[in-house]
Amino acid sequence: MYRKKLQITTREEGDIIDLTPEIRAVVGESGIAEGMVHIFITGSTAAVTTIEYEPGVLSDLNRALSVVAPDGIPYAHDSRWGDGNGRSHVKASIIGPSLTIPVGGGEPLLGTWQQVVFLELDVRRGRTRTVIITVTE
Amino acid sequence: MYRKKLQITTREEGDIIDLTPEIRAVVGESGIAEGMVHIFITGSTAAVTTIEYEPGVLSDLNRALSVVAPDGIPYAHDSRWGDGNGRSHVKASIIGPSLTIPVGGGEPLLGTWQQVVFLELDVRRGRTRTVIITVTE
Amino acid sequence: MYRKKLQITTREEGDIIDLTPEIRAVVGESGIAEGMVHIFITGSTAAVTTIEYEPGVLSDLNRALSVVAPDGIPYAHDSRWGDGNGRSHVKASIIGPSLTIPVGGGEPLLGTWQQVVFLELDVRRGRTRTVIITVTE
Repeated sequence: MYRKKLQITTREEGDIIDLTPEIRAVVGESGIAEGMVHIFITGSTAAVTTIEYEPGVLSDLNRALSVVAPDGIPYAHDSRWGDGNGRSHVKASIIGPSLTIPVGGGEPLLGTWQQVVFLELDVRRGRTRTVIITVTE
Repeated sequence: MYRKKLQITTREEGDIIDLTPEIRAVVGESGIAEGMVHIFITGSTAAVTTIEYEPGVLSDLNRALSVVAPDGIPYAHDSRWGDGNGRSHVKASIIGPSLTIPVGGGEPLLGTWQQVVFLELDVRRGRTRTVIITVTE
Repeated sequence: MYRKKLQITTREEGDIIDLTPEIRAVVGESGIAEGMVHIFITGSTAAVTTIEYEPGVLSDLNRALSVVAPDGIPYAHDSRWGDGNGRSHVKASIIGPSLTIPVGGGEPLLGTWQQVVFLELDVRRGRTRTVIITVTE
């Protein structure tokens, strides 16, 4: 097993960051040719998934998440805690914090147009986030 | 590998149960300090994810799931089977039954405000549910 | 570790294919009695989850996904690339490409009414798709 914690900095709600280069690098460092790589997001207002890393579809994804958890409606979380990030929690729970990808020939076996992305869903700006990458045989 | 099947009892649709204490206990029993813990929900009308375990945001999540699969509209599943739980199946498929969390220092590496939750989505009351927890090195 | 790549052919957008028999077969071939089976979808316009494999609820799921990413609205992805599959990408990212199931007694430990399904979300007809199944001890 080989594990690395990444720190990433996000600017604002809706940022979508391509983690694929870092994941490839960690898989390379691990020396594991055949196995699995797991990505985990620490925190409850961010998430991980795969998408084609193309600005148009990234904005389409953000819009779709706002259908389920819109801006400008009251959230019970916000009335209790005043954080203003009720929608962020809801979106993060729906997408989820965990992703596993097979590794073959020393590479994550993604499709050509399939990148691994970190979704910053919180309203607080300029956050530092932790992503835990684990490669197993 | 160390595995334990938990039985949990839920009262009604919309119940969200914090599994984190049980998961910590199973990781502890396993004696595995560095590895992964996997949580799996047996059944097609319940799901697992992470969220801040705070009543406000739990109700926000339930409301958001009802945007996608509302009460009070016809479901093809219900017309065929009369179960009345078409919406439960749909929500469960969207959230999913599987979650993997890294284990380090003998603990699941969750964020401070990030708990693992079981979502009871079925309309049938008083169900007993099975959760399979597997710890691997 | 035992791995197999499946090729599957889909007809059209909205096809939902039951992968459970293939997964059972791969678990059987692996000779692994106690462990995990992981399913990964290569590509960014398809996804994997579990559901009761019953035509009514499959159509309910497709309808629910169309609430989040409807037909007939403009997508930034489509304006840039003209693919017409902006909604496909969005749905695939929300459901996700990865699923892990515990294996016990040489079988995936699914519920009775819980099948593993491949969701074809792309608008292009007659696609060949790759699913990577990995069984680990």
